[in-house]
Amino acid sequence: MNDKSQRIEPRTLKGFRDYLPETMIPRERLMATARSVYRSYGFSPIDTPALEYLEILTGKGSAETDKQLYKFEDHGGRAVALRFDLTVPLARFAAQHYNALGTPFKRYHIAPVWRGENTQAGRYREFIQCDFDTIGTRSLAADIETALVIHDLFLALGFSEFSIRINHRQILNGLLERLGLAQQATHVLRAIDKLAKIGPAAVAAEMAETAGATAAQSADVLRFAALAGSNEEVLQQVRPLVAGNATGETGLAELVRILQGAAAGGVPPQRLCVDLSIARGLDYYTGAIFETFLTALPTIGSVCSGGRYDNLASLYTSQQLPGIGASLGLDRLLAAMETLGMLDKVATPAPVFVAYFVESRLDDYLKLAAHLRRAGIGAEVFPDAKRLGQQLKYADRRGFRVALIAGEDELAAGQCQVKNLASGESETIALEADAASVVAAVKRQLAKTSGSE
Amino acid sequence: MNDKSQRIEPRTLKGFRDYLPETMIPRERLMATARSVYRSYGFSPIDTPALEYLEILTGKGSAETDKQLYKFEDHGGRAVALRFDLTVPLARFAAQHYNALGTPFKRYHIAPVWRGENTQAGRYREFIQCDFDTIGTRSLAADIETALVIHDLFLALGFSEFSIRINHRQILNGLLERLGLAQQATHVLRAIDKLAKIGPAAVAAEMAETAGATAAQSADVLRFAALAGSNEEVLQQVRPLVAGNATGETGLAELVRILQGAAAGGVPPQRLCVDLSIARGLDYYTGAIFETFLTALPTIGSVCSGGRYDNLASLYTSQQLPGIGASLGLDRLLAAMETLGMLDKVATPAPVFVAYFVESRLDDYLKLAAHLRRAGIGAEVFPDAKRLGQQLKYADRRGFRVALIAGEDELAAGQCQVKNLASGESETIALEADAASVVAAVKRQLAKTSGSE
Repeated sequence: MNDKSQRIEPRTLKGFRDYLPETMIPRERLMATARSVYRSYGFSPIDTPALEYLEILTGKGSAETDKQLYKFEDHGGRAVALRFDLTVPLARFAAQHYNALGTPFKRYHIAPVWRGENTQAGRYREFIQCDFDTIGTRSLAADIETALVIHDLFLALGFSEFSIRINHRQILNGLLERLGLAQQATHVLRAIDKLAKIGPAAVAAEMAETAGATAAQSADVLRFAALAGSNEEVLQQVRPLVAGNATGETGLAELVRILQGAAAGGVPPQRLCVDLSIARGLDYYTGAIFETFLTALPTIGSVCSGGRYDNLASLYTSQQLPGIGASLGLDRLLAAMETLGMLDKVATPAPVFVAYFVESRLDDYLKLAAHLRRAGIGAEVFPDAKRLGQQLKYADRRGFRVALIAGEDELAAGQCQVKNLASGESETIALEADAASVVAAVKRQLAKTSGSE
Repeated sequence: MNDKSQRIEPRTLKGFRDYLPETMIPRERLMATARSVYRSYGFSPIDTPALEYLEILTGKGSAETDKQLYKFEDHGGRAVALRFDLTVPLARFAAQHYNALGTPFKRYHIAPVWRGENTQAGRYREFIQCDFDTIGTRSLAADIETALVIHDLFLALGFSEFSIRINHRQILNGLLERLGLAQQATHVLRAIDKLAKIGPAAVAAEMAETAGATAAQSADVLRFAALAGSNEEVLQQVRPLVAGNATGETGLAELVRILQGAAAGGVPPQRLCVDLSIARGLDYYTGAIFETFLTALPTIGSVCSGGRYDNLASLYTSQQLPGIGASLGLDRLLAAMETLGMLDKVATPAPVFVAYFVESRLDDYLKLAAHLRRAGIGAEVFPDAKRLGQQLKYADRRGFRVALIAGEDELAAGQCQVKNLASGESETIALEADAASVVAAVKRQLAKTSGSE
């Protein structure tokens, strides 16, 4: 096995990545934050298998997602595939367990999904989605709540500058009806959805090609999508454009109600903006739609998107399941935070480092660390009685904040040094049986440092 | 799509399961507990892809795990497979990132693994493993710490009655050397490993068949594996059996040191028991080995197992990577807790239910819930203004602990009812602008109920 020629090159598949501690620690923090916000609104966790019957996963997404599926035959000759999102599994889950779940049913699901797409910068073939959905109700209370959750989520994640863009499919449909493009709505919406990415000329070209839109129709659609200003101003401009069209007027009234409720729930208007260019490519949206952009990095696109649908699970059940939900693109957000310098370069989740100084006194170091943990403070004991300099270098590289140092002399005198690794400040503390003074000194020094844990 | 004949039956693959909220809530709690204990010792999180090159995953496990691999060709024609454990990915990861990581390197990894094995009761083809490992050190400090982590983990998970069984491969090897079975050690250890499952007669038969053991040799091995009593008593009986054999004496000395260190770190002797029948089937263990049994349910087998290895990543690198680690079988433990009645049947992670009583007052309910969340209390607003009875039935079934009820009269009087859903007790509280009295009343009622959140 030690013959070099027989060795296997350690490598990951193209489009997949390892998460080292420096990246995994904030990634876990993001997941914990999402979980905590979702839970605070009463969303319950669920989990579904990574592998599903192929027939469950195909036909619901687009031809493109079907092509990207990781599919194969399992040991029993079944055609199976890895899930490519969490929405299709939710639809299958809701149809299968409808009676046990009851409605309204609010769930969150934080799990990896897989797409064999061509890799580009910042896009991976495996990534985590953090979805929350409320199913079994048509009430706008759930739409309002979706805005509140997204808002709380980004505040909790550490952002103050972000904007949730909101639109309503029925406003778009109303306009398209008036423009005589109602039959081609899907194509038109897919084209508008690319506006920020490809620009108005290319969108117009696509509308001409896929929807047969005339130059005048395209111009109207683009003028509509470009309406700008405060929410009040945009709504005022929209009103005449949908007046007399029942679909458009319903959409507009709902949008106004959602804005009002979100304001009551604490969302300031500059963080929830009406944006008529938000279309969402997916067919199943029927009401409010959301996207979320970071003010400091709008180019990465929406980091949290979703909307209302009329019937989630029609592929699997006759039960009507209307609902609304959104999905946080956690790994995209993590990449953005890395770009924005928002991540600490810390490779340990424990703040305190206990140096292993005198070989025969290991048990004393173990006891000391146990006392700290009992006080709720994470502590790592270095495993080898190596030179102190080497140990402190390790502690520094990992990002520990406080070191406990007790050599033979200190132990003989019943003492211990508590060293702040950021400032270099050091206190000499008496080592009592319950280490109470050491614990107090560690807390004092930790309070002086700015670690995120 | 609403044509029944075209509908797809919603179902999961054999050996896979959905987690509904009642099960997923405690499952998330177990993961959070494991994470928190691992972090308190300075273990850092990492993540690796679910899919790896097939050549990375084969050859390291046994022929049996190779057979159970979910393998296929990806879009680029690469032979790939889903990981079947977290140890092989760790080996590949450590070999690949050795320079960036440095040693000692302590990591935990909580993630699903897949094995296409024949399904039996309580065994699934997808399950979560929670591993922690320390690599890059031969120090017994890491062995001791492994016992401490397992001990803290089960206490934190809510168990007081459990036993960590410890043995040492070198003690077993020393004995086998003395019995003239050293060359057949792998076969003998695999047979012993099944002792609890298949009994001594079948183990003897297997040893005869696979290792060519004589009846006398088998009897000696089985007598050894059956040594019982307190740790002191067992060690006393072992001492003469390995005396004069360097391997066995080293193993024994290390075992004694680990027991002493674990006691210093706070593990009572009845929870860390020497058990010479613990062998662990896997080839790569070379030192201390651990298994963990629940006193109330020993028949489910070990729920946390591991041990020391000399060279984790020899398949991928010439770098020697000794280390030690263990793996919590989270889904098996969850099944055990379900059997033992240790799980609450709660389907909501939020304790407070806000009834939606008066349709026009939705914004007031939203504000109330926002105040509770700002005080750190999860609150769900029912999305539809349905009959109160129906809403309270929903709240009861989900397991909410406190309900806020405010009808038209109460709202007009500036009041709100705070109802304890367990006791039925209800207080009428003034609704101030900041809802401070309501928050206080909710806290008072929550303190009277026994929910786990």
